[in-house]
Amino acid sequence: MKNFLDDDFLLNNKTSVQLYHEYAASAPIIDYHNHLPIEDICHDRNFDSITQVWMNDDHYKWRAMRANGIDESRITGSTGDKDKFHAWAATVPFTIGNPLYHWTHMELQRYFGIKKLLDQTTASDIYAQCNDFLQTREFSVRNLLRKMKVKILCTTDDPTDTLEYHKMVKEDGFEIKVYPTFRPDKVLQVENVEFFNSYIKKLEAAANANIVNLQNFYDALKSRHDFFHSLGCRSADHGLEHLYASDFTAAEIENIFKKLRESKSVTPEEAVKFKSAVLLQLAEWNYERGWVQQYHLGALRKNNSRGEAELGPDSGWDSIGDFLQAKHISVFLNKLNNKNKLAKTVLYNLNPADNAVFSTMAGNFNDGTIAGKIQWGAAWWFLDQKEGMEKHLATLANMGLVSKFIGMLTDSRSFLSFPRHEYFRRILCEFFGSRVHAGELPADIPWIGKVIQDICYNNVNNYFDWAKDN
Amino acid sequence: MKNFLDDDFLLNNKTSVQLYHEYAASAPIIDYHNHLPIEDICHDRNFDSITQVWMNDDHYKWRAMRANGIDESRITGSTGDKDKFHAWAATVPFTIGNPLYHWTHMELQRYFGIKKLLDQTTASDIYAQCNDFLQTREFSVRNLLRKMKVKILCTTDDPTDTLEYHKMVKEDGFEIKVYPTFRPDKVLQVENVEFFNSYIKKLEAAANANIVNLQNFYDALKSRHDFFHSLGCRSADHGLEHLYASDFTAAEIENIFKKLRESKSVTPEEAVKFKSAVLLQLAEWNYERGWVQQYHLGALRKNNSRGEAELGPDSGWDSIGDFLQAKHISVFLNKLNNKNKLAKTVLYNLNPADNAVFSTMAGNFNDGTIAGKIQWGAAWWFLDQKEGMEKHLATLANMGLVSKFIGMLTDSRSFLSFPRHEYFRRILCEFFGSRVHAGELPADIPWIGKVIQDICYNNVNNYFDWAKDN
Amino acid sequence: MKNFLDDDFLLNNKTSVQLYHEYAASAPIIDYHNHLPIEDICHDRNFDSITQVWMNDDHYKWRAMRANGIDESRITGSTGDKDKFHAWAATVPFTIGNPLYHWTHMELQRYFGIKKLLDQTTASDIYAQCNDFLQTREFSVRNLLRKMKVKILCTTDDPTDTLEYHKMVKEDGFEIKVYPTFRPDKVLQVENVEFFNSYIKKLEAAANANIVNLQNFYDALKSRHDFFHSLGCRSADHGLEHLYASDFTAAEIENIFKKLRESKSVTPEEAVKFKSAVLLQLAEWNYERGWVQQYHLGALRKNNSRGEAELGPDSGWDSIGDFLQAKHISVFLNKLNNKNKLAKTVLYNLNPADNAVFSTMAGNFNDGTIAGKIQWGAAWWFLDQKEGMEKHLATLANMGLVSKFIGMLTDSRSFLSFPRHEYFRRILCEFFGSRVHAGELPADIPWIGKVIQDICYNNVNNYFDWAKDN
Repeated sequence: MKNFLDDDFLLNNKTSVQLYHEYAASAPIIDYHNHLPIEDICHDRNFDSITQVWMNDDHYKWRAMRANGIDESRITGSTGDKDKFHAWAATVPFTIGNPLYHWTHMELQRYFGIKKLLDQTTASDIYAQCNDFLQTREFSVRNLLRKMKVKILCTTDDPTDTLEYHKMVKEDGFEIKVYPTFRPDKVLQVENVEFFNSYIKKLEAAANANIVNLQNFYDALKSRHDFFHSLGCRSADHGLEHLYASDFTAAEIENIFKKLRESKSVTPEEAVKFKSAVLLQLAEWNYERGWVQQYHLGALRKNNSRGEAELGPDSGWDSIGDFLQAKHISVFLNKLNNKNKLAKTVLYNLNPADNAVFSTMAGNFNDGTIAGKIQWGAAWWFLDQKEGMEKHLATLANMGLVSKFIGMLTDSRSFLSFPRHEYFRRILCEFFGSRVHAGELPADIPWIGKVIQDICYNNVNNYFDWAKDN
Repeated sequence: MKNFLDDDFLLNNKTSVQLYHEYAASAPIIDYHNHLPIEDICHDRNFDSITQVWMNDDHYKWRAMRANGIDESRITGSTGDKDKFHAWAATVPFTIGNPLYHWTHMELQRYFGIKKLLDQTTASDIYAQCNDFLQTREFSVRNLLRKMKVKILCTTDDPTDTLEYHKMVKEDGFEIKVYPTFRPDKVLQVENVEFFNSYIKKLEAAANANIVNLQNFYDALKSRHDFFHSLGCRSADHGLEHLYASDFTAAEIENIFKKLRESKSVTPEEAVKFKSAVLLQLAEWNYERGWVQQYHLGALRKNNSRGEAELGPDSGWDSIGDFLQAKHISVFLNKLNNKNKLAKTVLYNLNPADNAVFSTMAGNFNDGTIAGKIQWGAAWWFLDQKEGMEKHLATLANMGLVSKFIGMLTDSRSFLSFPRHEYFRRILCEFFGSRVHAGELPADIPWIGKVIQDICYNNVNNYFDWAKDN
Repeated sequence: MKNFLDDDFLLNNKTSVQLYHEYAASAPIIDYHNHLPIEDICHDRNFDSITQVWMNDDHYKWRAMRANGIDESRITGSTGDKDKFHAWAATVPFTIGNPLYHWTHMELQRYFGIKKLLDQTTASDIYAQCNDFLQTREFSVRNLLRKMKVKILCTTDDPTDTLEYHKMVKEDGFEIKVYPTFRPDKVLQVENVEFFNSYIKKLEAAANANIVNLQNFYDALKSRHDFFHSLGCRSADHGLEHLYASDFTAAEIENIFKKLRESKSVTPEEAVKFKSAVLLQLAEWNYERGWVQQYHLGALRKNNSRGEAELGPDSGWDSIGDFLQAKHISVFLNKLNNKNKLAKTVLYNLNPADNAVFSTMAGNFNDGTIAGKIQWGAAWWFLDQKEGMEKHLATLANMGLVSKFIGMLTDSRSFLSFPRHEYFRRILCEFFGSRVHAGELPADIPWIGKVIQDICYNNVNNYFDWAKDN
């Protein structure tokens, strides 16, 4: 029997152990997609309490607490940091089997050196201990990142964002590179005309433009795309139920845009045409700039409208949808490929039932220009757990080239979540090590070690164009 | 190499063994959803032959026999009990790898003490031996249940059922509690107007009411809901392809009901509106009464209409559908939640490709009022096998709180199927034990033992309101 | 740690080893579905180079090379055999974890006795060595087949094919039986009217008929069906996104056919009706002739239209779709069953998310006339790998009778791909052996050995009617 969370955690044979400790552990981290608050990096914030850094934006924990029968006041409500922490601590033993159980104790160990298990009996001590650490300079946001050997970070940003903090971080010489990511989801929310027009107003301000017609709209968006590029952005990202790839004419889109600007509602069919047009236009710019475009597909959001109204988006009311995905992606990528404007693309699915569809779809559009041009993205959100990653790796290996995979990202809002890279790497080494052990792969450790280092670091470093024009 | 079906069956390390024998094995059984014939419990029936108790209603066995090329006369037909048993015995070796192979031998061992394997060579002996036992008082229906330490049973009943046997069982002081479950599937079968009106006639008789308009209809249904409650029913159950949650107005539903009563057929859209309205109305009553509502979603029924015409429903002509589920469930639960009328709810999927959708959907509507308020139900029907349960447990653990799971049920028509609880418990203990063994969980046996006992018994006992007003 | 690809490859305990070597290894091969070029069998071709036999039609390898960033000129382009082989050799190490890695080294070992691993450093030697072998008589197409103990082969053929090579092979006394399969996919391609009519012209020539109306069309098709039968064909095969089973009238189909012949385009609804009618008509003939009908369902083809335009179909632009399958299959089979015209049927799904749907659908239409009448076909194309087969076997066992499974086929265009049968058999033996080892099955080796031999050879040999009228 192995001890919980020891040095060889998740590594079940000598080859896996060797691969992890000799090849994976020391590779630096490129976290190419997350939701970290750039302002905190800019100010090199120290958190007042573990509650603030651990729980204030973590809807994973919120959902677990709700499932555990905890009152909302102790989750997102008005009760104090200490009480919220205790409510969480009391929930932790009930997260048995959930990634939260592993993450919690990895984060306590890796950042704070705390090896005790968190529960009601240890909550007070751990709360005090963590908070003491967090007051120290060693636990400032930048030092937390340094501790994890992070080399590059990509945040997620709205096109109207001024990126002033990104500018400041760039200029103040922080050795970890922090790049924005262009995430224009709000541009597509045409179902709510009022919201759309208020967003256009923000876009006008950001682009210093007057948006009267479709061309103005595209020009303004393009100027933001350019601006993001100037600050090192090399990637766009979209969160969508599925891709949109209807046929449309330029005149139709102009007309739909006109209706929207006149505060007239558009039909569902018009909405789809508009989304198709804008997504394709953005994708062409991505290609022209050599960016990577990421599509996160398949979340069913806002299920609980009362909860959403009270706490806003990303508060734990989203789950996995069962949208039909294949034809949408196929037509979308094909249209771009036919124009020879298909950028490097990462496709992420939220529903694991779509694993085979996404994995094989990627293979249709590799064109030999760059290894792994079309990527099936890492196991995401609800799939970001041991089994989800194992299935992702196995399906990717079976149906494509896992050796060309650009690897892990945190997708997180928390500065304490970087041990997820370690978690992934252990699973990755066990994936290969167990196959060597079983005689399913040759025991050529340097070869497999190199493949692992590629997946941990080299592939992603080569895939994004960060070095250029920067 | 382990021996087949020994004491440590399905338990592959010391921790699993300890967890099972010290914590799981002795927990009593609450079988909160099954299709047992209450009349047999009432009369404490003795079966004449193993064929009668084992094969007469078991479409699992029928399908296996048909796949084995057995003529229908020896499955559901006119041949005698002995010949049918022999036909089944000859099929058993060909069920290798199927849960039927395990169930068959567990049932022979646990009830009859027979350790021989069933096949053509042993059929005669086993047939005689079982039949001898079945004549004895020790093998009456009630004693079979006592042998398995059953504490509570919930049958499945039509709203028009008089529940006379339930009343008698309640009154005769049987120490095992037997409650009805309100299953109004027929109320929704509006595609067949003739059938619908004949059903309304039965409902009128049961409710002693005259059903002219929609309000009468609801009143009659509600009176049956009340009546079921008075006999200890604390749960409703529905078998549906998917949930229905269309928008509708009261006037529309009244009009649709009027058409139906005038024997006019309704459009598919009207049918969906009607189903949505009735399901939501029933759900509100469930909430008001503190009942648990169960939705069994995703079966594709009556595939073989010739078979169905000859042998009726539940004769082995049903299989797994691929209906889109997520949005229907989301809108349905959201409508109830918005009115603050969302009862405790159990969602069962038949298609394992929907596991992630169901598991995460449950998490959207937990509100902290009770731990595990929205449950993703146990692996059901075709999924009620080792791999199906393992996947259910793993997905539930990864995407929710397995510690709050209300656990196993037989869903069976047979008094011999209670070893399925043992089967589940062994798999459950191996689920946790293997993770402890691998260092993925701390080796805190009392803690994990408690979690296992919760899943086997405490959670379900707390979840249903049987104790109250009863 | 086991050595890579040794005698006990994929066999992880003594029982699996025994089952494989004593029962599975020596069974002859019936490859009942492949795409081998009959002309090469007829002429007993010797290949000039390993590139020609290994790479010229292998879109699996092409996709891997494209994903590895290889230029198309070195994949399907104008560069020479040697350079293409080197490009492939350089890709092989990056196929780590993909079935190509196993297949490549199994094929080098089993046919050529080469135990070196293929990569850039060994490419030159292996290229020369293989080519030397390929010049020899021992490596002619027929001898390659003999080496693998092939007994029966079924190619895949268009109804308009003259089958002249099949006739010649039959007449020249080749001891391995080679039968055609009737694959009328082009008959259904009514979306492209021009193509359809050019195809009808070919059909007229093949059937020596004048096709003016629907009846002529059916008569011509039927005459080809008869002709195929006369040359030993006992199976039809279809590659479809999903089955078609719309309601239609004879008059409607006649009218649609008339439109097509007048070069008028048909509506999507008409296309579906036409496909439904023709598929059902063909299925009736299959029943009448005692043929097996195979349906390969769920590929999404021609995703990359530029690639397709340049290189044609089957060049690596196809992937896994997410079509809804269940109701289509249900209605289709039910219509035939209601007429008592349901032939033996094999249903193959490409999307593994449909495994449970297909596995249980088969069980609805077994009628006891023959064991395993409706088969859920072997893991196919992207699923033809270790995990895909393991899941197929596990799901089939759990939801049906794996003991009646007709087993493996290559589905391949290459004469070197027959070790895939060995690969399957190892996985099959491990499937049962690991369960015996874990005490989940009794250690009755002769019984399980017999089941394995049935799946490897006997079941398929009994299922197809090759012996009769031949």
